[in-house]
Amino acid sequence: MTTREAVPVEVLDDGCCTSADAAVDIETARELAHVFKALSDPARVQLLALVAAHTEGEACVCDLIAPVGLSQPTVSHHLKVLVEGGLLSREQRGKWAYYRLVDSSMPELMRKLSTVVAIL
Amino acid sequence: MTTREAVPVEVLDDGCCTSADAAVDIETARELAHVFKALSDPARVQLLALVAAHTEGEACVCDLIAPVGLSQPTVSHHLKVLVEGGLLSREQRGKWAYYRLVDSSMPELMRKLSTVVAIL
Repeated sequence: MTTREAVPVEVLDDGCCTSADAAVDIETARELAHVFKALSDPARVQLLALVAAHTEGEACVCDLIAPVGLSQPTVSHHLKVLVEGGLLSREQRGKWAYYRLVDSSMPELMRKLSTVVAIL
Repeated sequence: MTTREAVPVEVLDDGCCTSADAAVDIETARELAHVFKALSDPARVQLLALVAAHTEGEACVCDLIAPVGLSQPTVSHHLKVLVEGGLLSREQRGKWAYYRLVDSSMPELMRKLSTVVAIL
């Protein structure tokens, strides 16, 4: 039977269970889940990659419609989700909106992810 | 006006738009979106971290209920999603199920993520 020190536990008779502190706090978990939700659609993954690869790191929404093969309203919706997830920034210029990768967003995501599973 | 070489383009009169190949193929985008969907719930992020932090890298489902503060059926559902997302493996031993981080899953996720935005 494995016992764990320092944490108040209820040890069940079947010798299975000990308690453990959550290894990541709920706030960090919520932040990460929010970003992962923004990336949980293949079209959004593609859009993120397209913006990141674009010349000068900036793409007009009109550049993004043909490559993903979706309607403009659908593309605009997906881009809005990516902006709300903190991954892209948006700037309206005339009739078109321009999107840019938030520089710190991906390194920050990967840093947080690596602390969650303590692999780095 | 920015022009792009080598890719068949339709240049609109307003000088805005050029076409671009998708920077990540749809299959990779689907794989990533599938994993991100598995991580799109704060409880699942916490569960992943708990399993990863557990002694010997393995946790009984009964170890995971108290730290996340959810019912066993809910925890079991979340763990099932993590297994289906390729992040955890599951082994039934007697009355309890044991979960382990799939070793390659997080490094592989981070590698794919970094290629999507070409930041490494």
